[in-house]
Amino acid sequence: MSLLSKTALLATAATLAAGAALAGSHSAENPAVKARKAHMQLYSHNIGILAGMARGNTEYNADAAVAAASNLADLSHINEASYWVEGTDSESIEGTRALPALFANMGDVQAKIDQLNAASVALSETAGNGLEAVQAGLGPIGQVCGACHDAYRVPNN
Amino acid sequence: MSLLSKTALLATAATLAAGAALAGSHSAENPAVKARKAHMQLYSHNIGILAGMARGNTEYNADAAVAAASNLADLSHINEASYWVEGTDSESIEGTRALPALFANMGDVQAKIDQLNAASVALSETAGNGLEAVQAGLGPIGQVCGACHDAYRVPNN
Repeated sequence: MSLLSKTALLATAATLAAGAALAGSHSAENPAVKARKAHMQLYSHNIGILAGMARGNTEYNADAAVAAASNLADLSHINEASYWVEGTDSESIEGTRALPALFANMGDVQAKIDQLNAASVALSETAGNGLEAVQAGLGPIGQVCGACHDAYRVPNN
Repeated sequence: MSLLSKTALLATAATLAAGAALAGSHSAENPAVKARKAHMQLYSHNIGILAGMARGNTEYNADAAVAAASNLADLSHINEASYWVEGTDSESIEGTRALPALFANMGDVQAKIDQLNAASVALSETAGNGLEAVQAGLGPIGQVCGACHDAYRVPNN
């Protein structure tokens, strides 16, 4: 999907999020915020599996490494237009660390997501070759995660 | 990935989940449980967008409908072996509705996930054709969601 059509989606996402709230939300938390936090949780889960191996905290397992990297590729292929709804930045609502700059730079955000996808696809193709391949392939993934967080997330205290 | 290699993954998933806990968990909740709840949240978010249109609560939007259906296809392509860790069923720990029967029937669980994937791919190919296509395509998705919940989730009170 082009960036232009992603932008068009954003314009209607606020309305659409109301549908999500009807179907799935069990709390008052904004449904778009809930969805993006869930998405980040799944990134964290799969990166954690790979990082655990890379750091020697868990034993290298080829199938599990390939699965985690493939999962990162699937996750970074997801269309996030319904997550980044106008009016859900950290200066507009409670409970989010998404800076207003994110919403003003959706093209750059999507470019970073595409970088993450490329790095994840690459790792999914090498992660079965051994621990060193996992360690090498995690570098570009960590870099793009950090670049997006540095630019668009409220800093850690 | 074959069911056999998914089964092999389950045997090591408990160890691997420790790595996920180190990297991403901010609470004491079991990391596998957190991941599967996040995954379900994302199913709910995308099904909510489609259901909102199908029920007439939100206006039909072709791009958004295709995006949501494609997202369901990506999500149901994810390898869930690291979620369904032995000892994390509803009779072993608090905070989960995953019945022991789920863990005893991983082949059937995976077959249902594959059905969801096929139904989601099909809807992603028709969802741009109009509201009636969304309404028709949601039927098989809801059926497989319900079948899995009926068999493997602690019932609603």
